[in-house]
Amino acid sequence: MESSTAPNVVGPRQYRNNEKMIAVGDRGWLRAAEDGLIGIKVDFDSNNRLIDTAHNHEFMVLCSCSYLGLNHHPKILQGAIDALKECGTTSLSLSTVRIRPNLLVRLEEELSSLYGGPALLGASCSALSSGILPLIASGHLTEDGKPRVMVFDRFCHFSMAYIKPICGDESLTLTSPHNDLNFIEDVCKKYPRVAYVADGAYSMGGLTALEGLLQLQERYGLFLYFDDSHSLSIAGKNGEGYVRSRMKMNPLTLIVASMAKAFGTSGGVAMLGSDKIFDFVNRNGGPLAWSQNMQIPSIGASLASIALHRSPELGQLQAKLQRNIALFDKEFPTKTAGNGMPVRLLPVGEEEKAVRLSKELYKRGYYCSAVFFPIVAKGEAGVRLMLRADMEEEQVLAFCATVKDIVANF
Amino acid sequence: MESSTAPNVVGPRQYRNNEKMIAVGDRGWLRAAEDGLIGIKVDFDSNNRLIDTAHNHEFMVLCSCSYLGLNHHPKILQGAIDALKECGTTSLSLSTVRIRPNLLVRLEEELSSLYGGPALLGASCSALSSGILPLIASGHLTEDGKPRVMVFDRFCHFSMAYIKPICGDESLTLTSPHNDLNFIEDVCKKYPRVAYVADGAYSMGGLTALEGLLQLQERYGLFLYFDDSHSLSIAGKNGEGYVRSRMKMNPLTLIVASMAKAFGTSGGVAMLGSDKIFDFVNRNGGPLAWSQNMQIPSIGASLASIALHRSPELGQLQAKLQRNIALFDKEFPTKTAGNGMPVRLLPVGEEEKAVRLSKELYKRGYYCSAVFFPIVAKGEAGVRLMLRADMEEEQVLAFCATVKDIVANF
Repeated sequence: MESSTAPNVVGPRQYRNNEKMIAVGDRGWLRAAEDGLIGIKVDFDSNNRLIDTAHNHEFMVLCSCSYLGLNHHPKILQGAIDALKECGTTSLSLSTVRIRPNLLVRLEEELSSLYGGPALLGASCSALSSGILPLIASGHLTEDGKPRVMVFDRFCHFSMAYIKPICGDESLTLTSPHNDLNFIEDVCKKYPRVAYVADGAYSMGGLTALEGLLQLQERYGLFLYFDDSHSLSIAGKNGEGYVRSRMKMNPLTLIVASMAKAFGTSGGVAMLGSDKIFDFVNRNGGPLAWSQNMQIPSIGASLASIALHRSPELGQLQAKLQRNIALFDKEFPTKTAGNGMPVRLLPVGEEEKAVRLSKELYKRGYYCSAVFFPIVAKGEAGVRLMLRADMEEEQVLAFCATVKDIVANF
Repeated sequence: MESSTAPNVVGPRQYRNNEKMIAVGDRGWLRAAEDGLIGIKVDFDSNNRLIDTAHNHEFMVLCSCSYLGLNHHPKILQGAIDALKECGTTSLSLSTVRIRPNLLVRLEEELSSLYGGPALLGASCSALSSGILPLIASGHLTEDGKPRVMVFDRFCHFSMAYIKPICGDESLTLTSPHNDLNFIEDVCKKYPRVAYVADGAYSMGGLTALEGLLQLQERYGLFLYFDDSHSLSIAGKNGEGYVRSRMKMNPLTLIVASMAKAFGTSGGVAMLGSDKIFDFVNRNGGPLAWSQNMQIPSIGASLASIALHRSPELGQLQAKLQRNIALFDKEFPTKTAGNGMPVRLLPVGEEEKAVRLSKELYKRGYYCSAVFFPIVAKGEAGVRLMLRADMEEEQVLAFCATVKDIVANF
């Protein structure tokens, strides 16, 4: 038996609190589990159809980040196969700081050329954030070498928010209200060196306040770190993403993005402001120096994806996606309508309704996830959905009609 | 200009200190860079030969963790190709909490059967540690649900040490001297709930103090978390690794391992003590619930690797590796000789000698890395090397003779 004077071991809970977060988060998951909406086991049919094999139920998935449908593009699959055959190995199983397969070097070179600046690869986008953010906090990626105050946007992706306690051990780490330029400017006025950590395109459909941030960068030397995973390949002439297509790279900006979404393969890419940073991060990026990096099939698939990015097909797919987004926005003019991003939150009011909508949609052949408090405000529960280029016009319209039909009968 | 009264933003540096660590670590990397021993760009030839294409220099790599040579096994390469063709996609690009490809489910089932207990998959072993360790700290993986004091072995792999500040925000987090059972027992006496975080087989060649730890587990209910990446596939009848082959799973033990080393593919596997933990971690494992998980080629390669694990070939490869280790240990009876692990530290004395040895070895066709203070004690610098099953007897002997020849001429 534990005595009542047992020492208290609970941490400071300065940046996280599992007790609180999991109580809330797991409620959502268990709710979805009750309705059979998690742990669905599927076969991939073709295009965007999946088959729930346990129930022989075919459905369209509207929660996949493969916004251009490149995850099932024949040329990308063939790229993976060709690389396996050419290299004769799945990976070298060693640190790529020491030894780099030429195919990986080629991929870095082609991505650098595609995005116009040094590109560093990681096993995933979260591995890149894990490796890079603490180096920004400790001042190792900026000229003066001094620690920076880290300001994380309250809505930045979990993969970055997760790193807060690590950055917090290196330097003062704060959380800002979402897109709150005044808050960030106040921090810049108070401290000489500040970095702001945010998504470029947010996973709930919104965008970063880029223009205002660039002004703060010019005025105060604000370092900007963006995870632009949700817009890579879908925005910009070369698919360089929302942020990169709207700014020139500079030594005070760093963009990371997942290649496992619209790009169609796996791994993560960091767009850097200088070659010097490339070498330094490569050597001292912690998780980036461990022995698991991009595997040969993923490198091959990525080279094939770059070839597609350089062909007219990219523009065609981007246009098709934009057509589908516009079709949806016309039917449902939500808050983020017109911003060109494929993620949409469709509010229906109370949590109960959101859960019923998501359940009924699945029954009728569409998988979207219900979102409710605390992900969105109370009374603004709804479903989150992701549009894709590999949906035909009539599929988008049929989906919209189905949602309307269900909601009308609530 | 910054005023001398500028506010101090340096973090508490309770668990890490980039300023100090990078000064030391980068010195090592830059030293290796000077000698052309990092950033080598290679093609994979066959077996364990690499070609430094810039210098047309062929060499044997002795820093690869593919201890059984499975990374270039034709059946594993074919497994990846078959899965791509069968599934027609590189991945579904969505959270596997929601929707799981049947091929991933099959892999989980086969690994569960191979290792005798629930197996959970992650995009990498470090993603598993990132997801699981904070849940142990906050008490979410143990029956009583109360926070645990986290004791990290001083030598545990960076991928776990990295998580210290995150665990430290949830509960009291300590670092123990290496394999120090007395230290751990003292913590167990002071606190009712403790978890110990360690490698099974260490990346520098040693082993965990398993027997003593199991006694502490029985006596104090100590939770044991092992990363056994370096022994997976090479130890145990089914390749279940050093720790798992010496103990029965129980709810107070959790083993993670990388599949990108001897297993020959990529991703990470967690061996869990109960199905209940599987479901909970799957839903609340943070990084494990994000949309990047094992890709289809890696799943296919892994299924092929399991088939090999179930055939007599596994035993043959394990035996060949053990023969090579024994050959080496006979020539160089180092501290860890006889422990059956493939990683060896070959001490030569001063740092200068270690660097020269590594450089000269590379010239003569072998890549091993020099290690020196602070990785090893002063005066015990040397080279670190990894033996493999895909080395012939004469290759091991030729390597040993080369080392002796170089050292004799120092």
